[in-house]
Amino acid sequence: MHAIILSIGDELVLGQTVDTNSAWLSAALASRGIMTRFHETIADDQPAIAEALRWASKEADLVIATGGLGPTDDDLTRQALADAMGVALVTDEASAAAIGEYFAKRGRAMPPRNLIQAKHPAGCAMLPNSCGTAPGLQVKFNRAMIFVTPGVPSELFAMYRLSIEPYLDELAASQPALRRTILTQKINTFGIGESDVAEKLGELMDRQRNPLVGTTVADGLVSVRIRSEFDDPRKAQSELDHTANEAARRLGAVVIGRDSQTLPAALVDVLIAKKARVATAESCTGGLVAKFITDVAGSSSVFAGGWVTYANEMKSSQLGVPMELIIEHGAVSEPVAKAMAAGALERSGADLAVGITGVAGPGGGTEAKPVGTVWVALAHRATEGAATTDARLFLLPGDREQVRDRAAKCALQMLRFHAMGVSIDELRWARKN
Amino acid sequence: MHAIILSIGDELVLGQTVDTNSAWLSAALASRGIMTRFHETIADDQPAIAEALRWASKEADLVIATGGLGPTDDDLTRQALADAMGVALVTDEASAAAIGEYFAKRGRAMPPRNLIQAKHPAGCAMLPNSCGTAPGLQVKFNRAMIFVTPGVPSELFAMYRLSIEPYLDELAASQPALRRTILTQKINTFGIGESDVAEKLGELMDRQRNPLVGTTVADGLVSVRIRSEFDDPRKAQSELDHTANEAARRLGAVVIGRDSQTLPAALVDVLIAKKARVATAESCTGGLVAKFITDVAGSSSVFAGGWVTYANEMKSSQLGVPMELIIEHGAVSEPVAKAMAAGALERSGADLAVGITGVAGPGGGTEAKPVGTVWVALAHRATEGAATTDARLFLLPGDREQVRDRAAKCALQMLRFHAMGVSIDELRWARKN
Repeated sequence: MHAIILSIGDELVLGQTVDTNSAWLSAALASRGIMTRFHETIADDQPAIAEALRWASKEADLVIATGGLGPTDDDLTRQALADAMGVALVTDEASAAAIGEYFAKRGRAMPPRNLIQAKHPAGCAMLPNSCGTAPGLQVKFNRAMIFVTPGVPSELFAMYRLSIEPYLDELAASQPALRRTILTQKINTFGIGESDVAEKLGELMDRQRNPLVGTTVADGLVSVRIRSEFDDPRKAQSELDHTANEAARRLGAVVIGRDSQTLPAALVDVLIAKKARVATAESCTGGLVAKFITDVAGSSSVFAGGWVTYANEMKSSQLGVPMELIIEHGAVSEPVAKAMAAGALERSGADLAVGITGVAGPGGGTEAKPVGTVWVALAHRATEGAATTDARLFLLPGDREQVRDRAAKCALQMLRFHAMGVSIDELRWARKN
Repeated sequence: MHAIILSIGDELVLGQTVDTNSAWLSAALASRGIMTRFHETIADDQPAIAEALRWASKEADLVIATGGLGPTDDDLTRQALADAMGVALVTDEASAAAIGEYFAKRGRAMPPRNLIQAKHPAGCAMLPNSCGTAPGLQVKFNRAMIFVTPGVPSELFAMYRLSIEPYLDELAASQPALRRTILTQKINTFGIGESDVAEKLGELMDRQRNPLVGTTVADGLVSVRIRSEFDDPRKAQSELDHTANEAARRLGAVVIGRDSQTLPAALVDVLIAKKARVATAESCTGGLVAKFITDVAGSSSVFAGGWVTYANEMKSSQLGVPMELIIEHGAVSEPVAKAMAAGALERSGADLAVGITGVAGPGGGTEAKPVGTVWVALAHRATEGAATTDARLFLLPGDREQVRDRAAKCALQMLRFHAMGVSIDELRWARKN
């Protein structure tokens, strides 16, 4: 069973918006053994959308088209579907009432232009939209079952769960021959290069192997992707687990976790397990480490808080970093990073604190401290309440955004290693001082 | 002239990674009048990649394939191109030396597997990679000029500038008939809904109009997209400017700026112009406002720093918020937001400070203060150095990530309005207290 995904919108064809819906849909379909043959993007052009729908309806069993159901004049998908099918647009009274109610609930008058969203090509079923005003559409046309959903990701996701998934469940139940189980898992690492990951994985990466193992680099993380494909779902799962566990064992402490597990979530998990609270003192990362930690729901029990001491006076007045230290060594230096961490530890009452100071660029670099130079210090309570600090130097590649992102992730991984009782030197990118 | 973009990688077909390269390439090509007909994604499967290259080489004048040039066994694009062309892979000695040098410069031994990156299908030119080890490939095959680049975005972007763009320049110079100028501009707004934007734009959104005007919603921002297409480049530019200026005039203060201008960058611009420094006191946004501001290069001159007072003790000990206030009104309340802003203003010495406290979810909501309840307060120096504070209540939709993102953006837009001398009530989403 093959699918085609059509993403509709000028902003996609012109590259003004990145199409995230196709990846999400492909992942959802792949997990059920349905392979997506094409992602195609189409402009807000009624004849082009109609032509694409006609073509896709002959090429695939399942067509999911997203976008072009909004209330404005550049939303043309429902009109194009009517053209492709050779039918007229008709108004659905129940949908018109539902749209009116959506606005009434929010105490707003319905803009008249929203009424177009109650129309559909004759013969289509309308799909309820649980988080917006545009209903979706469903129709069997040529070889394919066609679903049309809004392009707003949250509305698409809800409609997939509510209407598309139940259809696929029913289909799989009635045609077991269609089913082949494809299970995937991703193992995410931070602090090791792609070639080194491949060396450690060795023969697990053989292309003839099932489960199949590959690697991908994104945002400084190297991820190991595992794909297990078998007729028997239990076999697919046990083989997947076996390969994933073996890969994780070979990679060691740099493994953050599986699938969508993020580095901040992995850190929060360890902190919760160890009942340890952290605080942050940030300069070049400007709040990014705190932001990453508080992205995680439930982080409030392990995150005391943080300081963004961008100006030197703030480092001194708020964290007690002696101004002489800053003058003597510079704001980007080992002693200042350590003093920031120690100040944050003392003032927050946390068990563990991190201090980060560096040159994120694009300006500010010198020969001795080029852009990408970042000091990360950890402060923690040793025996008798005295604070111990330790620091590492990083020379990070990339532009301002990349340097800040990697610096924040190095800080998170160092905090995680410390909380786990693993040496921070396992983070190979750090230069020991 | 038409292009096809092929994105190669299991992670794309399985939806584990979002394809951002296609959007970037489409935008780069569109700005030169080259329309991308298809984005196609293909798995790490040698025959499938070969078949896609063969098909695309007959359908388009320009084919750009990204991904599958890495050093591991799942990188198969160069082998597939050799298959498609019916030629052998040969080693390029200059590339082998360059790859060895890349590792030598970084003080590391070259992993033997990286040598595959020095191979290319006979007859292809190799394209230098200025920020990685994998050279690209270029070859005229069937109707198309084919470029193959690495999938790592930074390497693709550099290779496009270095090798693909000069080829397109030369082509346009030799075949003026191919040239048709398509210019685009995006006007970004924050704080107004899509239907309201459409009402204000009125007849500018007529689909017969050139320049063509559409709207898109992403990350809480409504963007107006303008596309101007003429033979004469000067006419295309003047018509684009005219429509863009008229649209911006109709929309007013909610307009952040054009194209890639972000809300934080717009705020930093205003602060620089007004010589005003800001400080941040964040609870539910956990550092996100500070992160947004310091994303902007050059923000150090207008950003004093900030506090992430996640725990109530931190609000009290670091910002001087009276604990009785927190007990009486709750941490998410107007008085606490105001006290946070006032504390940050006083302690930082900045001209303007923002305090944010709210319920980001998923837990923590109550009937009186549901998830999405956020108070944003501004503190600024009035005459005689006394601080004045003002606060607004927001009821923000969405999940934890969305509530935090929108709350941070509301804070940035309120800071921007205040610095511009515009009433913060222009931010229509705020509920006046």
